[in-house]
Parts: sequence; C-alpha cells; structure tokens
Amino acid sequence: MASRYDDVMSLSVRRGFLWPAVDLYGGFSGFYDYGHVGARLKRKWEDLWTAYFLGLGDNYHLIDTTTILPEASLKASGHVDHFTDILVTCTKCKESWRGDHLIEAVTHEEAEGLTPAEVDARIRDLKIRCPNCKGELGPARPFNMMFPLGVGPVGLDRAYLRPETAQGTYLNFKREFEALRRKLPMGLAIVGRAYRNEISPRQGAYRLREFLQAELQIFFDPATFGALLPVDSVRDEPVRVAMAGEKHTSDARDRTAADLIKGGVPAFYVYHMVLVQRFYLDRLRIPRQRFRFAELDERERAFYNKVHFDVQVSQDSLGGFKEVGGVHYRTDHDLGGHARASGKDLSVPVADRKVLPHVLELSFGVDRNVWALMDLGYELAGERSVLHLPPALAPVDVGVFPLLSKAGLPERAEALYRDLRPSFGAFYDETGSIGKRYARMDEIGTPFCVTVDHTTLEDGTVTLRERDSTGQVRVPGTSLASILRDLLDGRREFRTLGSAVTRA
Amino acid sequence: MASRYDDVMSLSVRRGFLWPAVDLYGGFSGFYDYGHVGARLKRKWEDLWTAYFLGLGDNYHLIDTTTILPEASLKASGHVDHFTDILVTCTKCKESWRGDHLIEAVTHEEAEGLTPAEVDARIRDLKIRCPNCKGELGPARPFNMMFPLGVGPVGLDRAYLRPETAQGTYLNFKREFEALRRKLPMGLAIVGRAYRNEISPRQGAYRLREFLQAELQIFFDPATFGALLPVDSVRDEPVRVAMAGEKHTSDARDRTAADLIKGGVPAFYVYHMVLVQRFYLDRLRIPRQRFRFAELDERERAFYNKVHFDVQVSQDSLGGFKEVGGVHYRTDHDLGGHARASGKDLSVPVADRKVLPHVLELSFGVDRNVWALMDLGYELAGERSVLHLPPALAPVDVGVFPLLSKAGLPERAEALYRDLRPSFGAFYDETGSIGKRYARMDEIGTPFCVTVDHTTLEDGTVTLRERDSTGQVRVPGTSLASILRDLLDGRREFRTLGSAVTRA
Repeated sequence: MASRYDDVMSLSVRRGFLWPAVDLYGGFSGFYDYGHVGARLKRKWEDLWTAYFLGLGDNYHLIDTTTILPEASLKASGHVDHFTDILVTCTKCKESWRGDHLIEAVTHEEAEGLTPAEVDARIRDLKIRCPNCKGELGPARPFNMMFPLGVGPVGLDRAYLRPETAQGTYLNFKREFEALRRKLPMGLAIVGRAYRNEISPRQGAYRLREFLQAELQIFFDPATFGALLPVDSVRDEPVRVAMAGEKHTSDARDRTAADLIKGGVPAFYVYHMVLVQRFYLDRLRIPRQRFRFAELDERERAFYNKVHFDVQVSQDSLGGFKEVGGVHYRTDHDLGGHARASGKDLSVPVADRKVLPHVLELSFGVDRNVWALMDLGYELAGERSVLHLPPALAPVDVGVFPLLSKAGLPERAEALYRDLRPSFGAFYDETGSIGKRYARMDEIGTPFCVTVDHTTLEDGTVTLRERDSTGQVRVPGTSLASILRDLLDGRREFRTLGSAVTRA
Repeated sequence: MASRYDDVMSLSVRRGFLWPAVDLYGGFSGFYDYGHVGARLKRKWEDLWTAYFLGLGDNYHLIDTTTILPEASLKASGHVDHFTDILVTCTKCKESWRGDHLIEAVTHEEAEGLTPAEVDARIRDLKIRCPNCKGELGPARPFNMMFPLGVGPVGLDRAYLRPETAQGTYLNFKREFEALRRKLPMGLAIVGRAYRNEISPRQGAYRLREFLQAELQIFFDPATFGALLPVDSVRDEPVRVAMAGEKHTSDARDRTAADLIKGGVPAFYVYHMVLVQRFYLDRLRIPRQRFRFAELDERERAFYNKVHFDVQVSQDSLGGFKEVGGVHYRTDHDLGGHARASGKDLSVPVADRKVLPHVLELSFGVDRNVWALMDLGYELAGERSVLHLPPALAPVDVGVFPLLSKAGLPERAEALYRDLRPSFGAFYDETGSIGKRYARMDEIGTPFCVTVDHTTLEDGTVTLRERDSTGQVRVPGTSLASILRDLLDGRREFRTLGSAVTRA
C-alpha cells in the first residue's frame, strides 16, 4: 500500500501533477504545489463540479469571498471555541500527536470525538508511548486548528484564515438574497482555499494544511424544501451506504432512497445523496464498488451538523475508503449564530411568514478528489504506464504528432495542431519515437492522439489513437475536430468509429 | 470624484458585483467579497488573461502553489528584510499612517522610497500633524507588510502569507524545468491570492489586504532572449508611455517601440510592453487615452526590479491614472537569492553553457482590473443605467424574456433559454415590464437580450436587442445561437445584422 502511494507520487512529481511544496528549503509539511499538468486537472475538476452542482437549481450561484475572517465571525460560528483536535505532546522529544490517531494506531477503531480526559485514560490503559522516541506522553489538551493572525499595523484586529469556505456564504446570505430577488431555495457556492493547522499532517497529499474546497450551501425553508424536490423520481435508486454501525466492518450496502427515508434520513437529504452519487459514478466515472457514503455518529460529526454522511472513495494508495467530501445538514446553526452575535435579523419573508433558512451543505475537497482520480486511474503494468482519467478531466485533450521529423510531416502536423488549439487542450510533440510520444501522453492521461504520416499528405486522413484501448483508426483530417469533440463529451464511443468513418 | 466612486460602488452592491466584506460585524477594512455577478466577471477576466498570456509562448503554463510560505523562502527573496512601508503613529489618538501618504497629501508629489529619517524630517519641515486628531506624530519606522503566522502545533515554524504569487513560481522553477523537458524561455503563471497588511487601506476596493493576482514569470537566457523575439514586427507600434520625469505633469506620450529601445529600455522588455498594451486596448477595450505605462524611478521601484513600468488605467472613481499591473525586469535577483539561501544550483544547461535564467514578470491585480472595467463601463445618464462591459467579459451573455407572461410565450421562451444555457451564460426573466427587464440586464452589462412574442409563435423569429445601441432586430430562432456566438466573439457587428438576417 505504501508502495502504491509512492508509485502515484512518483508519476505525479515526474510529470508535473503535484509535489510537496518548498522542497528547495527541505519541504513544508502539509503543503503541496500543483505543476502545469496538475493545475489543469484541478481546474477541469472545478469546472465540472461547478457546472454540475450549480445546475441543480435555477437560483444557484458562485460567489467569492475573503480567506481571512475577523474573530467575531468565527466566534459566532462556533469555530473559535469548538474547532479543535486533541493534542498530545511527548515529554521527552517534544513531538506532537493527535490523541485520536495515537489510539487508533493501536486499536484500529475510530477514536474521534473523545474528550482530553478520555484520551488520557485510553493512553494510560493502552500503555501508549511516543511513536517517535518511546518517551512518556504529556497530558491531552484541545488545540484550535485555525491559523490566527493580526490585521492592521499594530495587529490589534485578531483574525483567522478560514477553516472552511462555508462561512463566506453565510456572511453574504442576506446581501445575495436581496441581489437575487428574494427567492428560496437559494444556492451559494464557493471554490476556494481553506486552512487548518493540522497537528501532524503525515499522510502525504491527503491531510493538508492549505487545501481547496468546493462547497455549495443550499439555503431553504425547512417547511417546504422536501416537497419542492422531485424526490419520487429517485425513490428506487440504490445508494451505496455504510451506516455508522457498519462502516468499520463492511464497505457498503445498496439501499434505495425510499429505504433511507424510511430509516429516518430527511427526504431532501436523501435526494441530494442520489445527486452526489451520480456525480461520482457518471461524471467522475468512479467504479461503483469504490464509492460509498459513510454515516458519522453523534461523536464523530462536526459540532454544526445534524445529519452527516461522508462521501468516500476507496484508494489503494491511502489504504481503503477515504473522505473526499460530505453532505451536511447544518440546520439554522450558522445563520442563527451570526444573527445572535451580530444583532442583525437574518430571517427572510416567505409568503406570509418569516423564516430563518436552514442549510444543506455539499462539501468537497478538491485536492482529495484529484488524488483519488490519480489513484484509481493509474495503471502500471509492465512497460505500460497509463493514467485512465475520464476524458472530460484530462489535462491534455489530444496529442498531435508527425510520424517522422521530415518530408513535410512536421509542417502538416503543426498546422493541424494550430487548428485544434483554440478549441482543445492540444499538445504538439515531434521528439523521440512515436511509441515514446504515445507513452508520454498515456502517462498524463491524454485520451487521444493524432498522428500525421505520408498517407495524410496523399488523402488527408490522420491516425486517431485511443489511450485506453490503444486502438487506432484513420479519420479524415477535416472531420477530426467534430469527432474529437463528440468523443470528449461522451456523445460517441471510440470503438464505433471504425465503421462510422469513411476514408477520404 | 468621490461621488463617481459612490455611484459605481452603489451599483456594485445593489447588483451583486462586490462589496465590503463582513458587513454583518461592522466591516473589515481592506477586504471585499464578490457576489454572484462579480464572481462571474472576475472569472471571465481570469480566463481571458490566461488565454492571452499563456498564448504568448509555446512553453508557457499555469501552475498553482501554496499561499503560505515558510520564512526561509521569503528571507531569501528579500521580503522579510525589505518588503516594508514607513509607518507613523499618532502619539495622541494612536491612529497609524503611511509616512509617504501623509507627505503626499500636503505636497501632491510622490514620496515613496523615503527612509524613516527622511520622513521624520519632511513631517517636521512641513509641520504635518495627525489628520485624525491634529495630535503630534511619533517617529517613523519601517513596517513589514507581510502577515506572519505560526505553522504546527507549537507554532514554531514561522511562515507568512505570500505577498506576491511570483515566489511560488521561483520555488518551482527547477522542477518545472525538468517536467517541461528543459527548454528556455519557459513561462510559469499563477492566478491566485496574495496578501499585504496595508497600514491604512482607505481607498475602498483599490488598496486591499487580500487580493487576486495574475502573474506570468518568463524565465529566459539574457544572452539570447531579445534575438528570439520578433521585435522588428512591433518597432513602429506606438506605445503610450509616461517616463519617470513626466508622469506627474502629463498623461502620456506615444513613443514607438523603436524609440523606447533607442532610449535604453531592453528590446525584450519593450516587445512585451507592446503585447500588454494590445491586451488592454484590443481585448479589454480600454480607450487609448485611458491607458498608459508609467515608469518608476530607482526610488519608487520595488527592491527586486531593474526596469519597472506600471500599467495604469485612468479612472474617474479613483481620481485619475491608477496602477492595474506592472512589467518588471527582475533579472536573476530571485533565482540567485534562492540558490544562495538553499544551497541548490538553480542554473540550467543551455547549449554548452550553464545559465541562471533572468525573469521578466508581467503582473496584474485582478480586483483592480475588474474595478477599472466597472469604472470605465458605467454610464448613468438620466433614467438609463448601463454597464458597457466588453461582451466577452459580461457576467451574463444573454437575457431571455417572454414579452408577456401568458399565451404560451413563457413556455416558448423557457425552451429557448434551456437551449442556450449549455453554451451561453443565459438568464431567464419574466417578471415586470419588458423595459424593466432590459434595464436590469443593462445594469449588469448583459450585451444582448432576446424576446419571444406573438410573432415568434407564428414565424419562429425572436427580437434580438443590443445593450449599447438599444437597437433591435428580428432573427430566426434557429440561427440565434450562431449569431450570438459570432457577436460575443467579435466576429460580427450587431449593426450589420439588420440587412444580413432574412425573415423566416
């Protein structure tokens, strides 16, 4: 498993996906940078996410808010007092550890949500010592995971880097409600950085101190939301779920939406589970058995959530199912907190009533999703090293090559490349053997390559090659752009091309 | 002037462009949030910038790096020691001021780059007192504008929020050089947040503490770069420039590229000035007389720049020419600093030599550019309130309306809206008079509106209206999408449609 992680990271560094930040100065634990290929993959994921989730409602919009927030706002949200992990420091080597992780390493059971006293007791009972130096561990204490900073010349205005993008939407709720002509449900999404001063970010690119979130907050009237949604249309759809009591012993069971509702999960919540699952299975093309929702019990849930299922993807590089997102029913916790602390009325008129909207949050870690796609997609079989990304997410859409670097082929291939470039992420390459050039494209997930050869000069056809099957077919250069567009958008399958394409 | 600022900001808040952050808690000086319309405008600007500037070279790429950087890296770049403003604090009311701004307010001449002792002397000579309470001002001292923070459970790892995106590219230069197959020139761009703890951010949305930068760093071999570029092709192109000695007395003079080179500005630098000017005049459609480069003299330049012209746009809301970007010849200052501090060799092989690349930085403040577009575009004339944004940047491409909310018109208009939505930023509206609906679209800069009426039901034509001229023309619904695409991409002018379109 460690070696699978190393394999993916090795590809990642070599080809420019992502790598530990600031290696020049010995690294910077919990921080990763994206190279030119990774930045494209990440941006494509963001665009796909945005199109899908904003498309869920007519009144759903992207906004963008500051990453620094003043203390008053995060006091009101509960983060100043409650956004803590349990910290345990070794009395001998001074290394710091997360209390729950120390316990989990021994018991192999989740230990999130324990109090400092409970962590101390468990450490005593289990005779846990410092994993680093075997020294005696000091007393457990809560540690706030936000990064504090001072704003202004004397640093008097205490502020924090936001621990989640969500607060930016809550703070802007009332203004957007006015600007958007006073309608519920209203969705406000942010794709942006969030920051958590993790105690010991030892899991490579998974537990980051600076990360990108994509979060949609749906503000709704709890009296009517369920009835507004076409819940009936999804009642028979099987959802991959592990309930709180099951998730450590089995991967997941299929349950229909109707069964989940019968089991007590709110209908509006289940409806959105179905939509999130469709995003993973249909858009990101995650294999069904690699996907699940995992319920969090009262101890594990964040302090602001009433119903909480993690969205998880099973990744060999990370040892199994790992969180890549979450569906959070936050009730009126946040708007209520901000209304009380600010003294402003955040309720809104709905028909003849005043309603303090409830919030359903669909939250995703972009870096974790990018990693999951690389983990699931990377195939290292003998000589062949291929990244099977969904075509819509590939950093480069199409490689364009002349078969040989002579006889007018480069000129013809470059002209083709220039034609494709305005509409596609195209990459031109004429160095090395054609096999090496295919291999380089396979490794960064390029779904299609086009080769210009002598026949091209005669009849205008080019060779189109598919990454996954390594199949090749000749297509007329003049219809290449429209064929590529159809293949990338999933309107056409490569294997149907052989017969569909007539020679020029 | 203040009132022009207020007019633009009033539109901005009312319609969801941008507004002071955290108003719920009394505001947060130097921080602004983007609403749903502003976020779209900003994203479109980013996309336009990225397409244009990455298109300047075959080996130019976007990367994405962390906003938190460890102290060692910013010590090496010079920011820990030199990224300072001069701070003066009132002994009576304790309000803090920028020394140069206090002096400029009296002398109306730039006072950037003075030492603390010089600021003290000027304050004494000019008898300047606290603008707030008329109290005596304390001694001037340097104030570092970076936000410091501690990383890790005991906060031992001292770090800063990055003051510019540029450092992220320098730290990743060597890795990208390898991943990109060892070619110069190589361009690395970042569009991302940067942070400066401004002493007194009193200029509204102009001087922000958290802001978005779009920066392209071009790494090149100083021995060959000028000769590689088609400098000759631009030698006669007039560039709007105010040299250091002129910029306070005149707006700008046209100088040809050849003249600037003769005057001592490096040819590679002048070539990029021409390309930057084209971006502003042709893509952003800034009126020529509103644009200029303003040279910075040795005192005014940042410590890392050898040649430095600001990119400026004249904005009535901000009282004249204001910086929206800059062209910076940073030499090998940054790579040299990181090589020395890290002990790593950052030079690269070029033919038979080893070269420490030089850097030309094209740097832009995204927020300032967005504001400039709103300032220049906003027309408030009598009843009519219009935002004349370039069509390619408009938050909404097209409004779709039924003339009346009855007789099948809404159904027909909604069907049209659904057809357009996958390819355009479309907005459907059926409330209020048709005039009110046009007015709402004019105000957020929507370049075109389409209205469905009774004739549509008969012959399939719709009314297409242009924002700037308020002209209307009937076009067949079936060709609407392709006409709109041509209009938005600038391939066709609205005024040519009248005769070009035949009735269905």
